Amino acid sequence: MSVLDEVHTANAAYAESFGARSELALPPARGFAILTCMDARLDPAKYAGLAEGDAHVIRNAGGRASDDAIRSLVISYKLLGTREWFVIHHTNCGMEFFTDDVMRGLLGSSLETAALGPDGFTDVGSGPGSTQGSDIDWLTISDAQQSVVDDVTRVRNHPLVPGRIPIHGFLYDVRTGRLVDVPGAGEAGQPR
Amino acid sequence: MSVLDEVHTANAAYAESFGARSELALPPARGFAILTCMDARLDPAKYAGLAEGDAHVIRNAGGRASDDAIRSLVISYKLLGTREWFVIHHTNCGMEFFTDDVMRGLLGSSLETAALGPDGFTDVGSGPGSTQGSDIDWLTISDAQQSVVDDVTRVRNHPLVPGRIPIHGFLYDVRTGRLVDVPGAGEAGQPR
Repeated sequence: MSVLDEVHTANAAYAESFGARSELALPPARGFAILTCMDARLDPAKYAGLAEGDAHVIRNAGGRASDDAIRSLVISYKLLGTREWFVIHHTNCGMEFFTDDVMRGLLGSSLETAALGPDGFTDVGSGPGSTQGSDIDWLTISDAQQSVVDDVTRVRNHPLVPGRIPIHGFLYDVRTGRLVDVPGAGEAGQPR
Repeated sequence: MSVLDEVHTANAAYAESFGARSELALPPARGFAILTCMDARLDPAKYAGLAEGDAHVIRNAGGRASDDAIRSLVISYKLLGTREWFVIHHTNCGMEFFTDDVMRGLLGSSLETAALGPDGFTDVGSGPGSTQGSDIDWLTISDAQQSVVDDVTRVRNHPLVPGRIPIHGFLYDVRTGRLVDVPGAGEAGQPR
């Protein structure tokens, strides 16, 4: 079965038992938002205990506090009333395994897919290259804990973010499923 | 119980039965990525049938093909090998209910939270205003189907996106849980 057919089949089964979810309100019922990584191993609804309707979930490569993530967070509180935010990166993140220079090199040599091998990334393609990626900040990560601290700080200090919104920083451990406090990353670093 | 304590409690229960998920590989096992909205009512893992490890999930306000979403998609295919993408917006999206001018007005009058009332947004705050949001494109949506077509087209035509990646556009119906084809939005609009 194709991926498209698989998604259709899974969706039909979900819709079949949709029930009272059809009545959920637009604003998040539990009033918070999570910014986390797109990584396939992460399921924020499961690792943080969310039902449909509970919380906003923003995801990108790395779970970084990009301008677009901040756009989403500001809309989340300003128009939809969230009052508390979580920034959750994770161990073994793909963003730790390359740099902007590596990415430029891969894109420059080919638009084909590179493969993550045991010794790093290997470009397996042979198509035409591109210089279009040369001005992109890929928001790579050199230290997982520091990236959480940096991103909590960036959100905290953004001029459109009110100081009274608690921002908690965590690392999700992909080997244990646990959220681990990051010292110095927002309120999560405070004694509780 | 505080939101923070609730998340910790839910996470401890999840980690307790983590099992074989500790061995999941970094690249998405099913080789695809979904770009969708942060809306609390959407659970992409449920509506598309994803287990942990299956697929990348990118989410922002509106599920828009922002520069940051495209950064994430390019990393998804180039470094982690996804071969097929979905752009999934939804009915009753908050992004349909305001404009950049409304947002600038709200932020200009106050950084406090506005509330989504029956007649639209009402700013209930009284704190200091800001002009910092005046140059932000909030990526609002005036027509839900058109926004899917626009975003599939934007990803399709991006210079870093290879033409051979199928891109499917859908609207998720928050009243039924169903993914609905959008005519003209990528491969999903073709006869199947």
